[in-house]
Amino acid sequence: MEFERTVLKRRMVRHFTTEPIPSASIRRMLDLAQHAPSAGFSQGSAYVIVTRPELRKKVALLQGEGEYSKAGFHGWISEAPVDIVACVSEKVYHDRYNESDKLDDEGNEIEWPTPYWFFDIGAGCMIILLAAVDQGLAAAFSGITDPPGMRRLLGIPPHYHPVGVISIGHPAKDKKSPSLKRGRKPFDEVFHYDGWHATPKK
Amino acid sequence: MEFERTVLKRRMVRHFTTEPIPSASIRRMLDLAQHAPSAGFSQGSAYVIVTRPELRKKVALLQGEGEYSKAGFHGWISEAPVDIVACVSEKVYHDRYNESDKLDDEGNEIEWPTPYWFFDIGAGCMIILLAAVDQGLAAAFSGITDPPGMRRLLGIPPHYHPVGVISIGHPAKDKKSPSLKRGRKPFDEVFHYDGWHATPKK
Repeated sequence: MEFERTVLKRRMVRHFTTEPIPSASIRRMLDLAQHAPSAGFSQGSAYVIVTRPELRKKVALLQGEGEYSKAGFHGWISEAPVDIVACVSEKVYHDRYNESDKLDDEGNEIEWPTPYWFFDIGAGCMIILLAAVDQGLAAAFSGITDPPGMRRLLGIPPHYHPVGVISIGHPAKDKKSPSLKRGRKPFDEVFHYDGWHATPKK
Repeated sequence: MEFERTVLKRRMVRHFTTEPIPSASIRRMLDLAQHAPSAGFSQGSAYVIVTRPELRKKVALLQGEGEYSKAGFHGWISEAPVDIVACVSEKVYHDRYNESDKLDDEGNEIEWPTPYWFFDIGAGCMIILLAAVDQGLAAAFSGITDPPGMRRLLGIPPHYHPVGVISIGHPAKDKKSPSLKRGRKPFDEVFHYDGWHATPKK
């Protein structure tokens, strides 16, 4: 699919049919996710791909799917044929930035003005969300509210922080997020030309 | 361009020709960036688009372009016709999650297990980096080492944290990042099926 169309078509879809996803489609999405950039090419992101139905149910339970159901949503996490649990390790970044080419003149690790590990896993998940659309599928992201519980459930090492579950499947008619009623911010509130308060130039 | 090709073609390019970028191309990239998701549709990301040459030089100076030049790199930040300074406001997220539909049963804001504002700006920047390739251009991301300095230079409000500069232009032959010598991690180290230590299934 054309890149622009992929971006414009993508939205969080929270209901899926029972149709399975070919394993080649899953593999393609993952291969593309590996092309996300990372600070110092640290590659501190990792993903657990959950396809076994009983394990998907456990993931959904941890994610509070029951609460969503009470609010009238479908059980999109357990019904999705694939749930991808996105994780990132801050430790991998510190290890990378303690290699000789990244140390400062005094031999110290840089001070991190921004936790780029969270930025990088956001970039990786963006590729997966778009790749799902490109594969004729749909996806929804849910933030992980209980990282230690998800670590225990999936055997994720302590230094990897699970940030979210990307549920992927064939789209069905879903209940829209009430957040969408807020509407998209006007262009001029988001984009500023040649300085925050400079005259807008579109 | 096809989505997959856009992802596979993208890499950080750190040298640009003097050819300008049509303003319609810039606008297209920004419009697409607004389609990045955000927690609770908070939309806490904002971007300062720097095109004035003297201001690009100041941005480049703050980013330590001189140090990169000593290491044999081109001055890609000052030479890029467009530098986009990506910012995100944690405050916008807290404000959003203090609205009635997001409070917990006791009327309190959720505890944030992950700073999703950094995740979301990573997703937005990923779209811009890909959109540049889709427009026949190239881009490089540099992390902001002096956020207060960048705020002062561009008049960015205190609650917006500038995370990086996306420099965009027509690609020229550049010096590759030495980090690439590390190589891409093997697939099985990044992706884990049905549990971190379960048998790989490709």
